[in-house]
Amino acid sequence: MLSTIRIILINTFHPGNIGSAARAMKTMGLSDLCLVTPQRYPDAEADAMAAGAMDVLENARVFASLDDAIADCSLVIGTSARSRNSASNRPMLEAEACAEALLKESMNQPVALVFGQETMGLTNEELEKCHFHTCIDANPDYPVLNVASAIQILCYELRKASVRFEQANIQPKQAHYPLQEELERFYLHLEQTLTDIDFIIQQHPGKVMKRLRRLFNRARPESKELNMLRGILSSAQKASVAKDSTND
Amino acid sequence: MLSTIRIILINTFHPGNIGSAARAMKTMGLSDLCLVTPQRYPDAEADAMAAGAMDVLENARVFASLDDAIADCSLVIGTSARSRNSASNRPMLEAEACAEALLKESMNQPVALVFGQETMGLTNEELEKCHFHTCIDANPDYPVLNVASAIQILCYELRKASVRFEQANIQPKQAHYPLQEELERFYLHLEQTLTDIDFIIQQHPGKVMKRLRRLFNRARPESKELNMLRGILSSAQKASVAKDSTND
Repeated sequence: MLSTIRIILINTFHPGNIGSAARAMKTMGLSDLCLVTPQRYPDAEADAMAAGAMDVLENARVFASLDDAIADCSLVIGTSARSRNSASNRPMLEAEACAEALLKESMNQPVALVFGQETMGLTNEELEKCHFHTCIDANPDYPVLNVASAIQILCYELRKASVRFEQANIQPKQAHYPLQEELERFYLHLEQTLTDIDFIIQQHPGKVMKRLRRLFNRARPESKELNMLRGILSSAQKASVAKDSTND
Repeated sequence: MLSTIRIILINTFHPGNIGSAARAMKTMGLSDLCLVTPQRYPDAEADAMAAGAMDVLENARVFASLDDAIADCSLVIGTSARSRNSASNRPMLEAEACAEALLKESMNQPVALVFGQETMGLTNEELEKCHFHTCIDANPDYPVLNVASAIQILCYELRKASVRFEQANIQPKQAHYPLQEELERFYLHLEQTLTDIDFIIQQHPGKVMKRLRRLFNRARPESKELNMLRGILSSAQKASVAKDSTND
């Protein structure tokens, strides 16, 4: 459902882009705009660019962190330039596939599409929090889309996907995915366990958690699977404590 | 070929939109920008919005009329809001089909996609000059896309179509279509002939020519067919003169 697809803008510098985002969203039937630490909001420039989408702009929610903004989402997709991604092994979706993935899952739970700051895009830390990345195919000599243009294109693909889904009468997936905050609790549990069993040494944590996040983002555990994994972690912790006390 | 697809803006009011158009075009690999009687051009606001697409902006050509801008094109598609079209019987293409039609024909001859003035869109007179119309599917409650957003989406569809065509190795059509200026000469010839044979009475021309334009826009005569039609017109004129002189 287009109404449960959240558009998140991080650290937006030009308030005009927030207004343009609201307008682009509304023209395509989206309405859930979230702002993470915008430089200026509310702002007259944003109002001017929003035109007839003042309702979307006024209903925008402001968050202190990306974590807060995605806490109740089950699927998070980050936007980035292709060049940044080709260097990494992050799972990458074309705009059309991104729209289909978001729309399918939005029938069950809120989902989010995240846009970074105008000039820098999403930081690596922010990208790590996304299950997938998406990138709009563009002219390799000048792939520099304005953030409002990128939002317009992806919202347009979301609307097209929604029309296709309606025509094909596609039903929501039966699988139930954990919310982002449940996933974060799992990562904390995982890190704690790996520390308990001395796999992670606190003074030299290395890239273990980053690599595990990528692996689990690719695997996308369902809620039941996540419960099972947490059970395994608890068992590992108990066994480790038992061993430690035996050693004492 | 994306390079032979012309983007035409008519009577643009905000120079910023001309700059945004140039940027949107370049991000998707287009470069042929034409301006019909822009209110302000060149202009610093346009430069600012063009960002890294200054080359497209600087190479833009300015025309005194739409006729001049499309004279050497064989296919002209106008953009408009759905509400305006549903009332008429004009042939209408979805954005994706519009992109495919333009791209296919652009392999042979220049083609054009035309955008009207920001608030009013294309006038009826301008729409009559287009073979087809296109309209971006949008939220029926607020289908008001900014002209730069509309250009961005249609250029994006053109790029997607070009990637599909490359993958499918689609060849150009063999048919050769008359240029717009040849078509206009045909309409003049047609109107003159209809006057000569007293079908059109100069004091009360009515909507005959408008209706015939729509009919021929739907039929899209090839060059050979247009030559044949002009042959028929000449014969009708000669016969009419012969009859008139017989009557004298």
